[in-house]
Amino acid sequence: MQRIRVQVTGSAYDVRIGTDLLPTLGREAKAASRSPDAFLITDAHVADHYLGPAVQSLRAAGLAPMAVAVPPGEGAKTLAQAGDLYDRMLRAGLDRGGVVVGLGGGVVTDLAGFVAATYMRGVAWVAVSTSLLGQVDASVGGKTGVDHPECKNLIGAFHQPAAVLADVGTLATLPDEELRTGLAEVVKHAMIRDAALLERLEADAGALLARDPAVLEAVVARNVEIKAEVVSADEREGGLRRILNYGHTVGHAIESYAMEAGAALGGGPATHGRAVALGMVAEARIARRRGLLAEDAERRQRQVLARLGLPVTLNEPLDAERCLALARHDKKAEAGRLRFVLPEAVGRVVQADDVTDDEVRVALACLAER
Amino acid sequence: MQRIRVQVTGSAYDVRIGTDLLPTLGREAKAASRSPDAFLITDAHVADHYLGPAVQSLRAAGLAPMAVAVPPGEGAKTLAQAGDLYDRMLRAGLDRGGVVVGLGGGVVTDLAGFVAATYMRGVAWVAVSTSLLGQVDASVGGKTGVDHPECKNLIGAFHQPAAVLADVGTLATLPDEELRTGLAEVVKHAMIRDAALLERLEADAGALLARDPAVLEAVVARNVEIKAEVVSADEREGGLRRILNYGHTVGHAIESYAMEAGAALGGGPATHGRAVALGMVAEARIARRRGLLAEDAERRQRQVLARLGLPVTLNEPLDAERCLALARHDKKAEAGRLRFVLPEAVGRVVQADDVTDDEVRVALACLAER
Repeated sequence: MQRIRVQVTGSAYDVRIGTDLLPTLGREAKAASRSPDAFLITDAHVADHYLGPAVQSLRAAGLAPMAVAVPPGEGAKTLAQAGDLYDRMLRAGLDRGGVVVGLGGGVVTDLAGFVAATYMRGVAWVAVSTSLLGQVDASVGGKTGVDHPECKNLIGAFHQPAAVLADVGTLATLPDEELRTGLAEVVKHAMIRDAALLERLEADAGALLARDPAVLEAVVARNVEIKAEVVSADEREGGLRRILNYGHTVGHAIESYAMEAGAALGGGPATHGRAVALGMVAEARIARRRGLLAEDAERRQRQVLARLGLPVTLNEPLDAERCLALARHDKKAEAGRLRFVLPEAVGRVVQADDVTDDEVRVALACLAER
Repeated sequence: MQRIRVQVTGSAYDVRIGTDLLPTLGREAKAASRSPDAFLITDAHVADHYLGPAVQSLRAAGLAPMAVAVPPGEGAKTLAQAGDLYDRMLRAGLDRGGVVVGLGGGVVTDLAGFVAATYMRGVAWVAVSTSLLGQVDASVGGKTGVDHPECKNLIGAFHQPAAVLADVGTLATLPDEELRTGLAEVVKHAMIRDAALLERLEADAGALLARDPAVLEAVVARNVEIKAEVVSADEREGGLRRILNYGHTVGHAIESYAMEAGAALGGGPATHGRAVALGMVAEARIARRRGLLAEDAERRQRQVLARLGLPVTLNEPLDAERCLALARHDKKAEAGRLRFVLPEAVGRVVQADDVTDDEVRVALACLAER
């Protein structure tokens, strides 16, 4: 088991990474609460595998858990679902001293964190991440929220959890496509901050795809460390934290475009991970054309993405002008200006807000290359 | 004009109190934003009087304001109304660098602050308080939120404004009953923290009721100072901030009871201010019966409330057991335990969590005394 401390304004919390961590949930939740009430939010898929042990652990710690399973998938991240949860929390008598537990992937923890942030102006919460994306990304940084029909994560708040459990054993039941989504963020972390991590991914791609627990634990822990460093330095996305958006300016636009058009991405489903992989390929190309990034570094990123089962080319037609419009619509744009994070080398990025529309067009075109 | 600085974790902002402050809104909003977008939220009543000058001031500062008037009254403080506002903010293209302006009483500023807290995980906002309650209470402390059908302010967040304007000129159009609601909180501030303020209220009750601008400015400024001191010392209601709940443990219960029963309070409408006045009368009685508070101090509180047009006796029957149950249901109760703030003297209170149900019953009974 590895323990990583996340330091944020006015508080700090631990992310624990390992196997068989679910039995420790009760202890963590108990430490976070001042009353016996625990309100657990999960989804129907995760509940099948892990709700029993989670509830058992909460009970063993002397808490009185009440559990709700929301429908699986991004569709549960709505204001209406949050409204339903407030009703249930109130009816369950959850008071300000109680604790909310989010048990699931990023959708569940974003939703659970958001209702915890806004129920009685904030109650404590504990995240139990059961997806790779959740473990390496959503679990650190305190971002919580729900989607608006026209904009993902439009409605949200920053609300740090009291503790995070990342049980890599739970990744055994994760669908392949969701594992890949997590791996895209892992590659991103390597590219923005850690050349040694990229080497590890190059060496251990097979073991990761085979879900080797020891390799997963080491890789998740290093990713949590990277994210924690960045987030601690910049809790609210004023500056350094923006580097986490590498691949996401183009990636979000491609993702929105594919959703809107009902299109596939690189011959597979239009997942966030596939979109981010393609976004990194495009943004690395912008960097190379500017003379910022060496050709070898661009190639290594491309190869590791491909080895991890992520797309590096688009097999589908793409309307570049529509993508540009969607990028400007993104909530990270300010006054319609696109902000980019561009790699200078493996493990090092710079921020740029002077990327021209033509540079983006050329980069999008490169995704059609074979 | 008086300017009071509110210091909170990681930021600070000014509350400006005076007359003719509306023309300065544009400057404040501009300083808070990083893009030209300003999204103004008001209600239909306030809009009649003050929307024109507010929009004019925003435009004069180079901002592009978009305004929405919600229906007047507590009924607008819902999650559904917040959802409608997110839609409009997104359609208006409000980005993360934009600013939200709440122009109105506590309902409008609570709602505006909540959508500002949760739109894109938080955008800047400016409060323009046009009610006495808003100016002396809601405008300081960063509490924002909406109501749940069964619990006021259940859904909310802490989100400090970038600036607050308290234009006492706008109190000229405030209905009498709403003026009294603000005065109840003013008496509360005097009782918990400032004997000199109580003396001033005793001397200037007539001028306050006549809405003398100079007296209002002085009284509002002193109240903002008191609230700012308490809130700066304890931003999130861990300890000292609880003293602001004086009168509110019983007051909230009476208010909920009257709503539930459709009853009047002290021969008038069941407003928050009337409930808090009665709550302070009951809680001062608990303090006196404990030997904490002198009879003279209890009498002075009672007299000043009466002179300000607030009730000190209930003319209506009250179900004490139901009141007790409602108090336990309140979101400030923890594990069903009632927390009280009891006066020791004019200007000084202590916290108590050992008040028995019988003490509450006796105090409620005292409200029937003539």
